[in-house]
Order: sequence, then C-alpha cells, then structure tokens
Amino acid sequence: MSGERVYLYDSTLRDGAQTQGVDFTPADKAAIAEALDRLGIDYVEGGWPGANPTDDAFFGAPPALHRARLAAFGMTRRSGRCAADDPGLAAVLAAGAPVVTLVGKTWDFHAEVALGVGLAENVDMIGESIAHAAARCEEVIFDAEHFFDGYKANPGYALDCVRAALEAGARWIVLCDTNGGTLPHEVERIVGEVLAHVPGERLGIHCHDDTGNAVANSLLAVRAGVRHVQGTLNGLGERCGNANLVSILPSLILKMGFTTGVTPTDLTRLTHVSRLLDERLNRQPNRRAPYVGESAFAHKGGLHVSAVEKDPRCYEHIAPELVGNRRHIIVSDQAGRSNVLARLREIGLELEADDPRLAQMVRIVKEREGDGYAYDGAEASFELLARRVLGDVPEFFRITTFRVIDERRWDDHGRLVTLSEATVKLEVEGETYMTVAEGNGPVNALDAALRKVLTPVYPELAELRLVDYKVRILTPEAGTAAVTRVMIESTDGRGEHWNTVGVSGNVIDASFHALYDSITYLLLRHRLPGRDLAS
Amino acid sequence: MSGERVYLYDSTLRDGAQTQGVDFTPADKAAIAEALDRLGIDYVEGGWPGANPTDDAFFGAPPALHRARLAAFGMTRRSGRCAADDPGLAAVLAAGAPVVTLVGKTWDFHAEVALGVGLAENVDMIGESIAHAAARCEEVIFDAEHFFDGYKANPGYALDCVRAALEAGARWIVLCDTNGGTLPHEVERIVGEVLAHVPGERLGIHCHDDTGNAVANSLLAVRAGVRHVQGTLNGLGERCGNANLVSILPSLILKMGFTTGVTPTDLTRLTHVSRLLDERLNRQPNRRAPYVGESAFAHKGGLHVSAVEKDPRCYEHIAPELVGNRRHIIVSDQAGRSNVLARLREIGLELEADDPRLAQMVRIVKEREGDGYAYDGAEASFELLARRVLGDVPEFFRITTFRVIDERRWDDHGRLVTLSEATVKLEVEGETYMTVAEGNGPVNALDAALRKVLTPVYPELAELRLVDYKVRILTPEAGTAAVTRVMIESTDGRGEHWNTVGVSGNVIDASFHALYDSITYLLLRHRLPGRDLAS
Repeated sequence: MSGERVYLYDSTLRDGAQTQGVDFTPADKAAIAEALDRLGIDYVEGGWPGANPTDDAFFGAPPALHRARLAAFGMTRRSGRCAADDPGLAAVLAAGAPVVTLVGKTWDFHAEVALGVGLAENVDMIGESIAHAAARCEEVIFDAEHFFDGYKANPGYALDCVRAALEAGARWIVLCDTNGGTLPHEVERIVGEVLAHVPGERLGIHCHDDTGNAVANSLLAVRAGVRHVQGTLNGLGERCGNANLVSILPSLILKMGFTTGVTPTDLTRLTHVSRLLDERLNRQPNRRAPYVGESAFAHKGGLHVSAVEKDPRCYEHIAPELVGNRRHIIVSDQAGRSNVLARLREIGLELEADDPRLAQMVRIVKEREGDGYAYDGAEASFELLARRVLGDVPEFFRITTFRVIDERRWDDHGRLVTLSEATVKLEVEGETYMTVAEGNGPVNALDAALRKVLTPVYPELAELRLVDYKVRILTPEAGTAAVTRVMIESTDGRGEHWNTVGVSGNVIDASFHALYDSITYLLLRHRLPGRDLAS
Repeated sequence: MSGERVYLYDSTLRDGAQTQGVDFTPADKAAIAEALDRLGIDYVEGGWPGANPTDDAFFGAPPALHRARLAAFGMTRRSGRCAADDPGLAAVLAAGAPVVTLVGKTWDFHAEVALGVGLAENVDMIGESIAHAAARCEEVIFDAEHFFDGYKANPGYALDCVRAALEAGARWIVLCDTNGGTLPHEVERIVGEVLAHVPGERLGIHCHDDTGNAVANSLLAVRAGVRHVQGTLNGLGERCGNANLVSILPSLILKMGFTTGVTPTDLTRLTHVSRLLDERLNRQPNRRAPYVGESAFAHKGGLHVSAVEKDPRCYEHIAPELVGNRRHIIVSDQAGRSNVLARLREIGLELEADDPRLAQMVRIVKEREGDGYAYDGAEASFELLARRVLGDVPEFFRITTFRVIDERRWDDHGRLVTLSEATVKLEVEGETYMTVAEGNGPVNALDAALRKVLTPVYPELAELRLVDYKVRILTPEAGTAAVTRVMIESTDGRGEHWNTVGVSGNVIDASFHALYDSITYLLLRHRLPGRDLAS
C-alpha cells in the first residue's frame, strides 16, 4: 500500500469551532483556510452556511484557495419535507462551495430517539439529500454520523444508510465515531467489514478523542483501506477534540509511506502551521504535542544528552527538521558539562570543551540550582546567565530600591477594595528616575512602574506581556525560612514566548528577579544580530 | 480474555519526573504515592535511588502503601564490572524496596553506539544484573529499553536480551518503546511475535506518546496478550509524555472488561486523582483530557443538549460518573446539583435533593466558578461555603483593612534586602486590634500579623503552617484585567492538610481570601464534634 494516495479533509473551521473557549472571526477563518491550503490539505471545511453569522460571512467572501477545495457542511433534509424544499439544505447549497458535506444518522437508536423518525424514512432522507446535492455541486461527501455505535447495534441498518448515500452519488462515505468511544481494535475490525461493501477509494474516517485513541483509530482505518481522513489542526473540537491532523500527517507520510497532498517539503511547515493556529486563537501551544511541541525533541539528563550527541537516533524517532521542529537540550539539576555545551550550541554559542568560561557556567548553574533555581523551564534565564559570563549582556537599567504597598481599604463608594502601588528608583543610561504605578498585585505594579520609565527609552517593551506567573515555595519541610521560586512567562505579542526564573527568601524579590530577566532578555534579543527570539 | 487480570505499573514519580517543568519535592512524591495506592495501582515506582537527593530522601522515608508495591528503578550493571561490585546497582538495592526494576539495552545499535559495549557483553550485563537483584529483593522487573526499535533492527538480538532477563528470574519483561516512534500496527505485530517466546503473564508494555499513539499502543498490546501496563498519571513524562494511565484505565476496565487492582468503585476516584496531581504540580488541568477533563462530557449546541437530555447515550460514550467526572450542560440549571450532593455526603452532610439550601449552594458554586474559583483542589473552601449556607460557621474574626509594604533597600551592612511588613486592623470577639508583623513576602507577613492577635485567643493556631502557595493567572487572553486564583495548602503539623482558594483581581486580595478560609477552617474543625480535619 506504500505510495498510495490518501486524501486529507480538515474540519478545524467547523468541528473545531465547537471547542469550548474557541471563537473564530471570519478573518481568523480566512487566515487558517489559507494556511491549510498552503500546507497541501485536500479539503478545507469552512463551516455550516446558515448556522451562524460568522460562517455566512466566511462563505460570502471565501478565501482564494489554490490547492485545496472548499467544503460547506450541512445536514440531510428534515423528515416530512422533500430535499428541494428543505431550507437548511438550500442554505448549504447556496453557499456555492465546490464540495458539500452532508451529515446523516446511521444509528437506529439515534434516528428513533434523537430525531424521532422511522428507520426507512431516515434512509430516504440520506439518499434524496445526497442525490439533490450531487446534482448541484461538484462533489458531495456523506458523513455517516455515529457509524461505529450504529454498526455495533445494528450492522445491517448502518450499512443500508451508507449504501443509500453511495448509490445516490456521494464521492466519499465518511465513517464517523461521533461519540469518540470506539477503541482501535474495534475500528480495525469494523472498517475491515465495511470494505466488503464500500471500496476504500470511496471510504473515509472521522474520529474523536474521547478515549485518547483518535489518532490511532485514524491510522488503523487507513491501514485497513480507507483513503480519506478527517481531522482538525491541533485536535480542536468539542469535548476531548477531534483527531489531530498535525499528529496524523507525519505518521502517514514519513512512517507509513502514503502519498498525500502534503508533500515532504510541505511537511517541514507543520510546526509553523500548528503554532499559527494557537497564536490566532491566543491559546498556549501544547509543548508536549507529538511531532510539533516545543518539548517533542527535548532532552534532559546527562546520559540521554551525550547519547543524542553521538547519534540523534538514540533518542529521536525522526529528525525534528522533517516537521519543522528543532532539538532542544534542557538544562536541569542533572546538568553536566555536556548538557550545558549542547544548550549553548543551540543558542548559537560555540565554546571549546576546555574553555574555562564553560567550567564557570557549569559552576554557576550548579550553585544557582542549589539555591533553588530551575533552568529547566526557564531557558531565557539560562541564556542570560551564559551570556553574562561571556560579557554579552549590557546593563540596560539598574534598580536601586523599590517599595510596593498593597492596601485593602474602603473606597469612595463604601466598598472594600485592594490596590497595589509600586515606587521604583532606577538608573537608565546614566539618568536616575523615580517612578510610581498601580497594578492588580505587587508584581504587576512593579512591572507597570518600571515600564513607565523604560518604554520611552526602549520602545520595543511596549509589546511585552506577562502571560503566566507561577510561585512555588521550596523546602517547606525545612524548619528554616522557606525559599520562593517564581517563574514568569512572557510574550512579545508576535508569537514568541520565553520563560524566566527568580529565587529569593522574599517572594516579591524573587518575582522582581524573574521580571528583570524577562525585560533584559527582550532588550538583548533586539540587539543580537541574526537571531529571532528563542523560547 | 474478558475478566483476565492486568497489572498496572505507575512511573509518574520516576519517568514523570522527567517532564519539562516538573519538579517533585519528597512530600509531593509521598502524597502522589499514597493517592496511587488508594486508587489500586499495583506497582508504584518511587524513583531512582542514588540518582538525585529527592529520590534518596523519598526512599529514606517511604510512605506506607497498603495495596501497591513500591518499586525502585535502576540500570543494569556497567560494562567491565561484576554485578556485585556495581555501585549504581548497589544503591538501588540498598533502597530496600520490595520491587526492583532494571533497565537494559535491547537494541544492538544502542548497545554499540550509546554504551559502547559488545553485544555479547550487553546480554551478560542484563542476565547477571537481574540474577543479582532477584536474589536480593522480592521481585525484579526488566525494562527492555528501545525494544521495538531493537526488534525492527535485529529481532534475534532483541529476543536474546529479553530471554537472558527471563531466565535470570525477572518476574516481568517490559517491552519499552523508548523513543515513542512505533505505530499501533507495529506494536500489535511485534508483541504477537514476542508472545511466541515469552508468556503474556510475564510480559509488559511501556509506551511513549511521540506519535500520539501511546494509549492505543498500550491497549493493543494488552489485547495481543501482555498483562502488565506501565504509564504515568496524566501522561507526564519527557518529550511528549508517557502512556497516560488515566486514559488507559477506563478503557481497559469499562470497555475491554479486564480486571485490575483498580476496581470499578476505585475508578470513580479517577478524575479526583488526575486533578490532584495537577494541583500538586501547579499545572493547569487539561480540560480536554479523555474521561477526566472538564470538557470530556461538556455539551454545547442546542441539538446535542436536547438529545443528551432525551438519552445521554446519544452523545456520551460512557456515563461520566463511572470515572468520577460529570456532565456539563451549559444551558441547564440542573448541572452540578448531583455533584454538590455527592460532595456534601463526602463531608458528612446529608441534604434532601429538594432542600432549598441545596439550590442555594449550587447557585453560589456556579457564581463563584464563573468568577474563577475552582473547588476541585480546595475542599476546605468548599466545605466552608456549604456550612456557611447552613449557618454552621461563626465569624471567628473580621478584618476591616490591611496594608502590606514590600521594600527593597540597603540594610545596615550595605546589602540590598527585601522586607515585607503587614499592618492589619481586625475585630475578634468584639474587640478591635491593630497589629503589624514582618514576613518573607506579603502573604507571609499578613499571616504573621493576623496570628499575633489570633493565637492568644485561639491557641490551636500555633500549629498552623502554610506549606504551599500557588498563584494562577486566569483568562490572560482577555484584553480586560486578568483575574488571579490563589490556592493555599495548610497543615496543623499533625499530619492533616487542607486546601483553600481565593480569587480576586488583586493577587494579595486573592491570597487574603484563601488565608482567611484556611484559618477559619482550622478553627471550625476544632469546634465540630466527632470529625477529623479533612483534606
């Protein structure tokens, strides 16, 4: 089967829009459709015409796609109407998309309980709707809703539904595991049985991740013979999400040897496309995502690192470049010289193994880790540490003293409010400043006060945002004073994220150190030639 | 195969500790081991004795496990030493765990490139180390590192390694997909072939999620015949994580009909255990996690909701209660009532389903959750909320205003120091007090100031200690001001721990609410007859 063509159908803009907390604008939809098109996806499902204003706006001015075909989603006709008179169906066809995908019930229980229609009428609804649409657009796809549950309950009836769609002219019959409860061995068996009735060149698969098996179910269905796979970018979708096309693609292409519209060259853009979606939606990218996550090729621990440096295949199942990702060496409390060296190379610093500055860095890392620092999640602080040893980091500003006041008091309206106010004394380029600002907590107030002075001098700080702030009390078992570790995650608002760390006996002081590193890192990055911000 | 016993092996505390950003304290490890034990996991791998101070501390004072067996992880002996003289092996055995798990190479390439040892010697290293350990502990497990890559490259050699371990007395041979690159159909085939050489009752599986198939690979291996599954809670682990035991368990038990140490009754605690881990680690729970995620049984969209109300099977693959999760129907007022009732029963409060006070509690919980409160990890705050509705909670003290000053300044010795000082005005039993104290941060200072007044009145507060303090910024994507959630874990110094939560636009205010609840909870508990403090 190696080399055979598999067709990819993306439902990010329709099923993915059901994700809790996701809300696409028409502009988001157009940008994502274009990214899918450039990637080489065969079908881009744009939405459900007639279902909501966003989808209508999108189909009203659809993006120009060059490689992909645009699909409009809808339902088969309602019971008691003929297809030509069904307003829902008419709205879908009126969108003018070359491809129309219609969903219909194939589970007897569902037709009777959820729809309340007779079993024979349900089959008629499918056949007539598909035939009606097939005469009015270039290509019709039938989504067989609840197919696996339906087949387990009543295989004959489920197959009758599918056959009706096939005979009415559907290009693809897509078997949907709508509730997501079907396990891999069941998908394998049932798809195998359906292939006796529907040729693989007309059969597709659509899985949900409710048991954590959506990717495997999709791959096993393709191996069994289906040649059309539906899914979403980053596995967006309601409940636990849809099958994640970003995980499926590399396995299909690199490991199983199938041909898709996405070429191996296109595949090197996969990490970018995955992160683009998250940026569009303002979601935190999943660093542990297969293939494209920031941690997917991260190596911790001296033994692993030295093995990877001998030969990356020791601990990497594919070369990260194939999917546009990169190797990541983590500095952790198991940090040895080889970790630090590898991490330095990654940030573009080449030192000889016997360079005394390397020994100095290892010593500082170990000392700091003894104090409670953790560079594992704070790569930006590590880079600053290394570059400070090399003398690369100017003192962009220096804080001498600060004071933060958090006060809970009665406001003018007789309500109890809590306000934080920070006063900071600092030096920037030889000038001394005193500045004050309010915030929603002491760290936020400190940040605001600092930026009041710094942003006019360093305008790039205007884009800096703190997106996460984590506090951890270390060694609370110890009878002695607890030490606090603060991690701050920042972004420049253009897709770059970085993490910094501060440790101190005082939580505000620890926060201040992490904040200082975050600002310094952004300023440094703008001054180092030829490198983007790294996380 | 239905009803057959499958053994579960958790590696959260060892492989899970490799997760980027995860850093367990010995107290975290003990708490997680106890939660795994209560859940019914067969083997709890505690760590790698001799590898780092945390693991040594954990094995130095291991938690008392009642259902699970504690396992210590280590490597087979190094080349050129005999097993009896290997210091690494000696450290693992010295930990005194009843179970010892030893990892060894089974991929010829890896033995030669990463270890640099001859193929024959590698087999000897395995056999001798297993035999040495088997004579010195109750049970030895062999982790066959890189087994699948090794088997694909050189099946004869991989099997030789495995056979050496089996013959030397390993109770289990665990096939590891160390690099995580093996696809489901390959796992199925290779496990099937290995079963011709090793009986399923001695065979285990250990998967990583680098292709998004770790759960499926584990389930397919069990179906093929292995009877031991390794994984971690929430899929913690380096790179993309290990096989997620939380996803595997319900499929194995509820769908495939296997028997495990986790009974169906234990399984109803699964959601709680999953979230407990995240709270311990200050990680955002994955709302889309299969089975246990907050969205796993969430229904959006009117059609789905009305179908679910007719019959939940329409859009739910299992009943959420089976795994301790709950349905989220966004439009329904009924959501949450059974959950609240169940929680009330847990804290010894019996209310009738039509009690108006129950409706009031549900309303308050919903309101608070809308504001950003999360009662999952803050049972003490939930209990206070419920008992306040019942009129059970006296106002032990009332704070009117406070002010905290954090100041970074030069001390008398010319060093920069940061000090926090809190001033609080409060009423206790009709008296008004004003008090001031220092601390290592604003919350610590507030706590100290409060206790200066409260401890003479309520001497039981002398034992109260805050052991953890976690801050999370909610909705950072909103352009509007972020809301902060603070969780505080407290102990009475006699083994009881409880968690409280506070939410506010100001982090100090949120901290204050959580602190107020913590103190009130301790005082209330001392006054309610017949019940210990609950966590």
